[in-house]
Amino acid sequence: MDTNDLPANVLDPDCPSRVIFQRIGDKWASLVVQVLADGPIRFSELRKMVHVVTPKVLTQTLRTLERDGLITRTVHAQVPPRVDYELTELGASLLEPLTLLRLWAEDHVPSILKARDAYDDAQDEAVIGG
Amino acid sequence: MDTNDLPANVLDPDCPSRVIFQRIGDKWASLVVQVLADGPIRFSELRKMVHVVTPKVLTQTLRTLERDGLITRTVHAQVPPRVDYELTELGASLLEPLTLLRLWAEDHVPSILKARDAYDDAQDEAVIGG
Repeated sequence: MDTNDLPANVLDPDCPSRVIFQRIGDKWASLVVQVLADGPIRFSELRKMVHVVTPKVLTQTLRTLERDGLITRTVHAQVPPRVDYELTELGASLLEPLTLLRLWAEDHVPSILKARDAYDDAQDEAVIGG
Repeated sequence: MDTNDLPANVLDPDCPSRVIFQRIGDKWASLVVQVLADGPIRFSELRKMVHVVTPKVLTQTLRTLERDGLITRTVHAQVPPRVDYELTELGASLLEPLTLLRLWAEDHVPSILKARDAYDDAQDEAVIGG
C-alpha cells in the first residue's frame, strides 16, 4: 500500500511492503519467529534455541519484531526480573508462510548441495583449463 | 540433513538447511527470484525491476543463486554479448513459498504500520514521562 492507494507491491521501492518482506526474511528474524512458535520464551532460552547469534543482534531483532507488532515483550516483576517474548496474533499469522519456506529449505538440501558441488567443480576446471 | 542423517532442521547450526533458509530469505535474493518468475531477463532489466540495488550486490546475489542451482546464467554470443538469467526448475519450486511470504507482507502493511506508530508513540511518552 502506498500513498496513491495502489495495491501493495514488494517490487515498488516506495511501498512499505517491500521493507516488511525483506525484514521477515531476515536471517535472524525468520529463525526467532520459528522458535517462538512453541510459546513464550525468555531471552536466554531464545538465544540458546536460535544458536550463534550475539546478544546485541538478537536484541535488535527482537526490538524490530516488537515494533512491527509481531511479538510482545513482557517484563515479570520478580527478582531477578523475568522477560518473556511471545508471538502476537499478527506474528502467529506469519508462521504458515514462513514454515513453508523452512520446509522448502529443509527438503531441498540435497539438490542445493549437489548444485553447489557442480558449480565449484566447473570453476576449478575453468581455472585449470585457463 | 547433517552428517548423522538426522532430519534437516534450520534451527540446528550444523545443518546446511539453516544457511539455505537464511539465504533464500535474503533481502535481495527473495526479490530477484520474484522478478525472475516472469521469465529470463538481462542484468540491466533485472536491476531496473529490483530497484535500488548496487550492481556489485546484485552480481553477488546472482552468483550465490547460480551456485545453489536456483538460476542459470546464459551468455549469448553476440555483439555486445547478452547475458540472461533464468530460474531453474529448483528455483521455480521456491516461487510458491516465497510468493506466500510476499502476499503476507503485502496484505499486512496496514497492521504493521499501525503497530509501528503505537510503538513509537509509547517510546515518545516514556521519554516525556521520564
